[in-house]
Amino acid sequence: MNFLEKKICDEGIVLSPSVLKVDSFLNHQIDPELMLQIGTEFADRFKNEGITKIVTIESSGIAPAVFAGLKLSVPIVFARKKKSLTLTDGLLTSSVYSFTKQEQNEISVAKKFIQPGDRVLIIDDFLAHGEAALGLAELVDQAHATIAGFGIVIEKSFQVGRQKLEDQGYRVESIARIKEMDTKGITFILSEVMSS
Amino acid sequence: MNFLEKKICDEGIVLSPSVLKVDSFLNHQIDPELMLQIGTEFADRFKNEGITKIVTIESSGIAPAVFAGLKLSVPIVFARKKKSLTLTDGLLTSSVYSFTKQEQNEISVAKKFIQPGDRVLIIDDFLAHGEAALGLAELVDQAHATIAGFGIVIEKSFQVGRQKLEDQGYRVESIARIKEMDTKGITFILSEVMSS
Repeated sequence: MNFLEKKICDEGIVLSPSVLKVDSFLNHQIDPELMLQIGTEFADRFKNEGITKIVTIESSGIAPAVFAGLKLSVPIVFARKKKSLTLTDGLLTSSVYSFTKQEQNEISVAKKFIQPGDRVLIIDDFLAHGEAALGLAELVDQAHATIAGFGIVIEKSFQVGRQKLEDQGYRVESIARIKEMDTKGITFILSEVMSS
Repeated sequence: MNFLEKKICDEGIVLSPSVLKVDSFLNHQIDPELMLQIGTEFADRFKNEGITKIVTIESSGIAPAVFAGLKLSVPIVFARKKKSLTLTDGLLTSSVYSFTKQEQNEISVAKKFIQPGDRVLIIDDFLAHGEAALGLAELVDQAHATIAGFGIVIEKSFQVGRQKLEDQGYRVESIARIKEMDTKGITFILSEVMSS
């Protein structure tokens, strides 16, 4: 098991076969040393891709994204789920359905922060149905920038997100890939890079 | 000028004598190297305070807070502005009025992540009227933990936030303190530690 798979086994709580709670180190409380490891791993996997910008979404994507940005020496832009009064510039927007919250959200980024020449790494905490990932991809497309790939902290491989992204030709790198889970345990698709 | 005051002069946009837009490096796009410098400075100023936990609020507090947490080797908890479906545990909540958005928000943290023995450093991106800071302090108080102080990225010193916090006996450390600003320029209260 790699460092993240181990952490998920130690601290993750399986609420149902599709819902994993990792609020002790990623979604509410944040383990900064773990985020550094995750960010470093993303940077390593995409170091030859000429990344110029990282795009993520508030709030749980920010911590892993800033460490990847630090390691790759590129800025991060986080998409907002709610519009800000002081962000009055031209916005790129897309619509994302949340299966967890069962609601449609509009996400947005200021147009000026993603340029046509950018090579973008999209980072997010979870990949499940792929809705947030595709929404972020749409923002990058609208900016006429290039998507170099997706860095995902935890992938629920039993859901369709990865397939949707791969069908569109995107490279997907997930640090932990969950094959299946229930209250008795979690099975991972072990990564070639880091599994023992 | 210190590194942050210089960045504010270079990239900050004064929208009115009370509204400063720093979305190119803090509130929307994030400069990770700058966040590392800010987090390191917070850690340095509070290194002898026996900090066991950092509390911040989504979304713009997260980046400076994770670097401070990394340097102090302590976890971060970010208060949420909206309730999560998968966070069903006992919540501590308080009410925060946003002058910028002119609305009342309920903020919350899971009770289990702030313990009575904790010595908490509260970090936020801006200190203006002190509403968010006092809301976070109330959460920490409800948990019967101790507040070691506040680490603020940008303080609008012409507003009442610092006074409110100091009146309650709290230590406030701000990396940049704005004395006044208008579209012609920004005047800082230069810090003893880092100004040239």
